[in-house]
Amino acid sequence: MFARYALIVLFLTLPITLAAQPLPSWNEGKSRTAIMDFVELVTDEGGPGFVPTAERIAVFDNDGTLWAEKPAYTQLLFAVDRVKAMAPSHPEWKGEQPFKGILENDLEAALAGGEEALMKIIMATHAGMTTGEFEAEAADWFETARHPETGKAYTEMVYQPMLEVMEYLRANGFKTFIVSGGGVELMRVFAEEVYGVPPEQVVGSSIKAEFEMRNNEPVIVKQPELNFINDKAGKPVAINHHIGRRPIAAFGNSDGDLQMLQWTTAGDGPRLGVIVHHTDAEREWAYDRKSHVGKLDQALNEAPDREWVVVDMKAEWNVIYPDKGQ
Amino acid sequence: MFARYALIVLFLTLPITLAAQPLPSWNEGKSRTAIMDFVELVTDEGGPGFVPTAERIAVFDNDGTLWAEKPAYTQLLFAVDRVKAMAPSHPEWKGEQPFKGILENDLEAALAGGEEALMKIIMATHAGMTTGEFEAEAADWFETARHPETGKAYTEMVYQPMLEVMEYLRANGFKTFIVSGGGVELMRVFAEEVYGVPPEQVVGSSIKAEFEMRNNEPVIVKQPELNFINDKAGKPVAINHHIGRRPIAAFGNSDGDLQMLQWTTAGDGPRLGVIVHHTDAEREWAYDRKSHVGKLDQALNEAPDREWVVVDMKAEWNVIYPDKGQ
Repeated sequence: MFARYALIVLFLTLPITLAAQPLPSWNEGKSRTAIMDFVELVTDEGGPGFVPTAERIAVFDNDGTLWAEKPAYTQLLFAVDRVKAMAPSHPEWKGEQPFKGILENDLEAALAGGEEALMKIIMATHAGMTTGEFEAEAADWFETARHPETGKAYTEMVYQPMLEVMEYLRANGFKTFIVSGGGVELMRVFAEEVYGVPPEQVVGSSIKAEFEMRNNEPVIVKQPELNFINDKAGKPVAINHHIGRRPIAAFGNSDGDLQMLQWTTAGDGPRLGVIVHHTDAEREWAYDRKSHVGKLDQALNEAPDREWVVVDMKAEWNVIYPDKGQ
Repeated sequence: MFARYALIVLFLTLPITLAAQPLPSWNEGKSRTAIMDFVELVTDEGGPGFVPTAERIAVFDNDGTLWAEKPAYTQLLFAVDRVKAMAPSHPEWKGEQPFKGILENDLEAALAGGEEALMKIIMATHAGMTTGEFEAEAADWFETARHPETGKAYTEMVYQPMLEVMEYLRANGFKTFIVSGGGVELMRVFAEEVYGVPPEQVVGSSIKAEFEMRNNEPVIVKQPELNFINDKAGKPVAINHHIGRRPIAAFGNSDGDLQMLQWTTAGDGPRLGVIVHHTDAEREWAYDRKSHVGKLDQALNEAPDREWVVVDMKAEWNVIYPDKGQ
């Protein structure tokens, strides 16, 4: 009985504590105000903008929105390391692009073959094993891999202000989903621990898989064939497919999130669209219209008319990464 | 403050009320005992079978497990009615199977073309409109359509004992998912109201969809092309794709659920596999190994070795449908 009581007390005090100082890593300013005004509006029972808990769905892009994406998507860096680890059993890779380039640390040569080269890298490193084997490999990698510039673990390069937004939304009855162009199974390895988002609330790109019985033991085997690319116009389609309900809030950072933002904010009632604008060359990276990774151009153009909040990272975030600050 | 207090009191008393008499539509017997023993085991903190809340995932087939599937899948009956409703704008259907058969109330002739005929019916009735339009049509249909034999609304032909299982599991910290061969968007129209399962916890078969801007308004348009058939070996693949975590409990009724049951119950720790066996020709239908719809053969063979619970509907359920009893 004591434990239950303690839980109730926690339940009663937690929202109050949070309400006293939500979003501490956000400076007072237009973005923090817009997010908090929206949450107050949709949670105000009896108010004009009230939204029932079940419909409080918020979606977040991952690369560049929840964690860093420079100098390259983390998933590509994972694949590069996997190619190197797998190379001893693939002697033929020494003479064959894109693998040759990776083994010679010449990523440019490896990726010269464009999308086809990228797909070869992805399929060689993400298919041909069971889902359990892939998870174990990915978990190992996250334990040991370090970012080439910061020396941090990749899971330490998540944005503290965004962690606070997700927590704040959940404390206000929202369900938070990740809707990313990244591979769904790679994200699920860390999403629960790092973001507090359970696997069933992670939506991503995927390759096909097949069910098999091996020695009377069922396994799911990842196949070297694309299933779905969850980017651009694919995002609202995947949201419809996985979530089946239009979100009321969407957070992105690039043109890959344009349609997700459009779809989310075109619904009836209060809507929140947020773009994380990378403006801080000192503490993170500064890029937008001309960047290859995380290009933000059309979405930035549409932001004013569609009333999307554009977050100026440099001016509005007093901390970038958790714990150690910048 | 009063409202919050009332909520807390409700929160405190609800589990106790439920615990006093769970599963009232189940007669005392092996199935009820097996389900309750399993739940007690996985919720016993500190016990040998304890499972953390986040991992308490239970999956349910729909047709024949949560609602009736005779004389034909509800989705087919929906499609038949839609063909009839759409026929005035398709004069060519009068001379063209499978539509001709449907318009002449000769379903056998309509389905003589096998899978190809079925796909034509599905695509004509499920594609070519926006997701919003489809939802509205489906919701209208559920309002007015009645089962040819019982005269009940289809959403009244859900199994009261299974509603109780889902509620009982949720009261014990489980997340309940539907994993059905049926079309995901049709189920989502009623799943939340009827089963208490939100759209994001409904997994099903699907056709492709595309995002479009129409007059500056974003829409998602259903395409006449299969995306995924969520049946047999497809079920564990979809569970992996959507849920990303192996369930600890699975409920099915046919060989379409065989691999889902295998995948679920082969995991480590306590596992529950349940087969609803249709044995009640009087109050419902009696069928198994030789039935075209809901064929239960191999799964019935594997049940003893894999320790799946086989529910004898006739003997173990004291009520079939909600409210009016049988």
